[in-house]
Amino acid sequence: MKKLTDQILHEVIQPRPDNSFKGTFGKVTLVGGNRNFGGAIIMASTAAVCSGAGLVTTCTDQSNSGALHAQLPEAMFADFTDDQQVASLVSAATTVVVGPGLGDDETSLHILKNVFANVSPAQNLVIDGSAITLMAREKLSQPKANVIYTPHEMEWQRLSGIKIGDQTEEKNRAVRDRLDATVVLKKHHTEIYTATTTYQLPIGTPAQAVGGMGDTLAGMVGGFTAEFKDQGTKAVLAAVYAHSAIADKIAESQYIVLPHQISRALPSFMKKMEAAPQEHHIGFLN
Amino acid sequence: MKKLTDQILHEVIQPRPDNSFKGTFGKVTLVGGNRNFGGAIIMASTAAVCSGAGLVTTCTDQSNSGALHAQLPEAMFADFTDDQQVASLVSAATTVVVGPGLGDDETSLHILKNVFANVSPAQNLVIDGSAITLMAREKLSQPKANVIYTPHEMEWQRLSGIKIGDQTEEKNRAVRDRLDATVVLKKHHTEIYTATTTYQLPIGTPAQAVGGMGDTLAGMVGGFTAEFKDQGTKAVLAAVYAHSAIADKIAESQYIVLPHQISRALPSFMKKMEAAPQEHHIGFLN
Amino acid sequence: MKKLTDQILHEVIQPRPDNSFKGTFGKVTLVGGNRNFGGAIIMASTAAVCSGAGLVTTCTDQSNSGALHAQLPEAMFADFTDDQQVASLVSAATTVVVGPGLGDDETSLHILKNVFANVSPAQNLVIDGSAITLMAREKLSQPKANVIYTPHEMEWQRLSGIKIGDQTEEKNRAVRDRLDATVVLKKHHTEIYTATTTYQLPIGTPAQAVGGMGDTLAGMVGGFTAEFKDQGTKAVLAAVYAHSAIADKIAESQYIVLPHQISRALPSFMKKMEAAPQEHHIGFLN
Amino acid sequence: MKKLTDQILHEVIQPRPDNSFKGTFGKVTLVGGNRNFGGAIIMASTAAVCSGAGLVTTCTDQSNSGALHAQLPEAMFADFTDDQQVASLVSAATTVVVGPGLGDDETSLHILKNVFANVSPAQNLVIDGSAITLMAREKLSQPKANVIYTPHEMEWQRLSGIKIGDQTEEKNRAVRDRLDATVVLKKHHTEIYTATTTYQLPIGTPAQAVGGMGDTLAGMVGGFTAEFKDQGTKAVLAAVYAHSAIADKIAESQYIVLPHQISRALPSFMKKMEAAPQEHHIGFLN
Repeated sequence: MKKLTDQILHEVIQPRPDNSFKGTFGKVTLVGGNRNFGGAIIMASTAAVCSGAGLVTTCTDQSNSGALHAQLPEAMFADFTDDQQVASLVSAATTVVVGPGLGDDETSLHILKNVFANVSPAQNLVIDGSAITLMAREKLSQPKANVIYTPHEMEWQRLSGIKIGDQTEEKNRAVRDRLDATVVLKKHHTEIYTATTTYQLPIGTPAQAVGGMGDTLAGMVGGFTAEFKDQGTKAVLAAVYAHSAIADKIAESQYIVLPHQISRALPSFMKKMEAAPQEHHIGFLN
Repeated sequence: MKKLTDQILHEVIQPRPDNSFKGTFGKVTLVGGNRNFGGAIIMASTAAVCSGAGLVTTCTDQSNSGALHAQLPEAMFADFTDDQQVASLVSAATTVVVGPGLGDDETSLHILKNVFANVSPAQNLVIDGSAITLMAREKLSQPKANVIYTPHEMEWQRLSGIKIGDQTEEKNRAVRDRLDATVVLKKHHTEIYTATTTYQLPIGTPAQAVGGMGDTLAGMVGGFTAEFKDQGTKAVLAAVYAHSAIADKIAESQYIVLPHQISRALPSFMKKMEAAPQEHHIGFLN
Repeated sequence: MKKLTDQILHEVIQPRPDNSFKGTFGKVTLVGGNRNFGGAIIMASTAAVCSGAGLVTTCTDQSNSGALHAQLPEAMFADFTDDQQVASLVSAATTVVVGPGLGDDETSLHILKNVFANVSPAQNLVIDGSAITLMAREKLSQPKANVIYTPHEMEWQRLSGIKIGDQTEEKNRAVRDRLDATVVLKKHHTEIYTATTTYQLPIGTPAQAVGGMGDTLAGMVGGFTAEFKDQGTKAVLAAVYAHSAIADKIAESQYIVLPHQISRALPSFMKKMEAAPQEHHIGFLN
Repeated sequence: MKKLTDQILHEVIQPRPDNSFKGTFGKVTLVGGNRNFGGAIIMASTAAVCSGAGLVTTCTDQSNSGALHAQLPEAMFADFTDDQQVASLVSAATTVVVGPGLGDDETSLHILKNVFANVSPAQNLVIDGSAITLMAREKLSQPKANVIYTPHEMEWQRLSGIKIGDQTEEKNRAVRDRLDATVVLKKHHTEIYTATTTYQLPIGTPAQAVGGMGDTLAGMVGGFTAEFKDQGTKAVLAAVYAHSAIADKIAESQYIVLPHQISRALPSFMKKMEAAPQEHHIGFLN
């Protein structure tokens, strides 16, 4: 495995072109947050907004719209049971994130199928949490898209069929190759399986072992892949690295890290990691 | 074009007279925020309150009232489908802001017509976002009022009929003259067309390319034109300049600027920009 | 008129006895905030909680309960149309605050009458905003209680019958004597009429000329009179002084002061103003 | 009585093992917050999350779900009248906290019985506030679980039958022995009765005499007993000590302490109190 370093951040986080507008930085549509798990999709959406995606829309249970806007007026709201509106928002997105707090009942399944039916090959699709569980349980086909899975080990067991104790790089890669997707396997020293390479995240802290941490990561992957869409899989690597790098920094002075703290720290962290602007290179003759 | 400088801030932001009360600083009525886009009108309202307008009322979908007050107890709420109440609030305002998150369906159109039917010539009317789109699509007449449009380039194309690539100063000015309105054309180096002059904003940052940035600007134009109503169009120029000057400052340490950060920074920024109080001038003989 | 000084704060804000519990610091019941003006009662309630009252209950329109708890979990909620519950909460209070955002329709009037019918002579009753307007318009009798009015000049005109231009100390005092109430007449250099003395507030800033500032003052008067109930009218004077002293401090670096900033600054401000703990006095023979 | 010292914090708050995940730190299910007292369960839940429990679910009145998620997206929501869902969440918890803001009507009683019917001996059950009052009034049997009561003196009088003036260590202990539970008797110098020892809390401040302070303590006891489940009763002692130690620190610069400030200070406070990581002990021969 190749160890990720903060070099990935300097590569991906480029200075924004002067003549840019919000459309330049992509659209993220997030789908999740049933009546019980509204906080999950709010945390994921906060991460997407703070990552710098141009436009963020949150498709969730209508009981969550007030809390969403109280936390995050920058996000737009849609009722996740409005199939037509969700279809339209999914079709228009640069990246779709489905799963945080989606739940696993009949309504959840219906919504997931609607999302899958409306993504297209050029789009990024982040599949997280209960969406992974539902896919495995209901044997749903993976839609044609640039799919990124963000399972923890138990969700990966459900999806891949590989028991937690047996999840070796080789076996994981075999399943990844069959799926033809990027897999972010969340664990102590998270592993990222891309088409060509397996990366290991050498950083991170047990202070991250808190509910909502994964929702925040899914939202960041959503935000980064939309904003830095030309960077391909590197955007996923950068999101995963940034998530734990910020957590490590916060954990220097906190026993636990609250997920929203990572999101709120993103704008200043990303500024520090931003690549130096391109300079006029001075030739060797000067 | 004339380049705006921070001189406009020192001119417009005068020390408040000691014997003033909230009525001195005008009333802003904002209309927008349907069920999906509640965050937009909340951000615009936050900007109006933080600018220092005396009284701010937000007419929006009733599903947004909780989030509005959770974010901003300083604003009052009205249901934007209550025609009579909206009419009354529009009539009583120093400045009306219509459009942020209004949407473009039948209800949106009905509300917009209600607003237009109730403004009067002495009032400021800021027309933003979907209100511009609706006007163009439905060929609504511009109401008699001191109208300020805040379109981005695509909205200006819809309203003016000038394609984005053809939006020269000369052509824009011709349409502005026909409309007899102030036009804030939002783009890289925003342009402001007043009755006599075209101004260019030489500041601003791509860190502003984030959803909600325009809603915040519309709210600031609303707040400034109510609070500094004797300053006429200068209040618009000051709002536009302040919006980007604050963003530039925040962007020194952040990769992106969140819209509400600009609003929350207004009270301290405006204090720094406030004109020095009038002093007793000491004649040269002393 | 006697000028208030910060001496009033040192007198009123005594160190809390070690063996105290929340009941020691009184109960405040606030009544107001209809569907449109929920922010007003939230701001008043925030002021009461941050002043240090032991228990705070907010009787308001049910549409405001979510925003109340999102802002202020420390306050309890009651539906202000539940006559029986309101009666019970009013009866049990040390201080009742009625008026912020109450509105002036039939429901508002019904609620106000219910409050008036349930206060008793030993209780403090702060009558603010639309409650004053309703009393004047409907010629309601002032209930038997320790009444404190907090009108601005127009509300005082309605209640007293004295036109704004004619509101001299002498005329104001004559009405105050007839009412046998404390009157906090909010204006540039607010005046407080007690049974024996007229005080003038020599501090304050036009940065306070913002919607919600009066709601915050009413809540602080509520909080102080409950918490410092043994101090009688001095608690009112201290609340009025503290409100503007904090605003003056904030206005050093802000063009306007947002009402909730005053409330949130109370705990640290009050600590600084707290009287020195009683020391064992060393007699002259030692 | 034995005086508690900050030594208990160093013992209980161990460095988290590197290879941990959220499941490592337990699940807390909180039950309370009727329509009137939603803030109480929000404050308790905030305390549980900030203590570092792995997963936190809040069973409360559905009118509170928006405010819960606006304050605390990290918590999950369940409708406390959904008996089946509450039963399932109670069964799955490491620690159940019942009582904050539960109320004492028929619905409250029904919910409490449902909780009692679904706990099992290996679980921690924190019984607080109106749940104690209901148990006493309705003579409910204490369920088989590791029960921790957190009464104030009046609630203890109701539960134990010992009048406040007669609550001596001896009498309290006799009732505790009969109940076979841990009792945290909240008062000036709170006393904790465990199976073997009576502890007295020598710290704390009258600045804590504010509504919601007890709800926050109940939530912290919930969080600590789940997160540090191997520490047994020591986790209760650590929660009680930390609650007042943080309050004392805040009270150095504030006249009152708001409950949520204690919760929000927990992550950094706990980091400072964390035991030093185990070192390789150097033998005496070296």
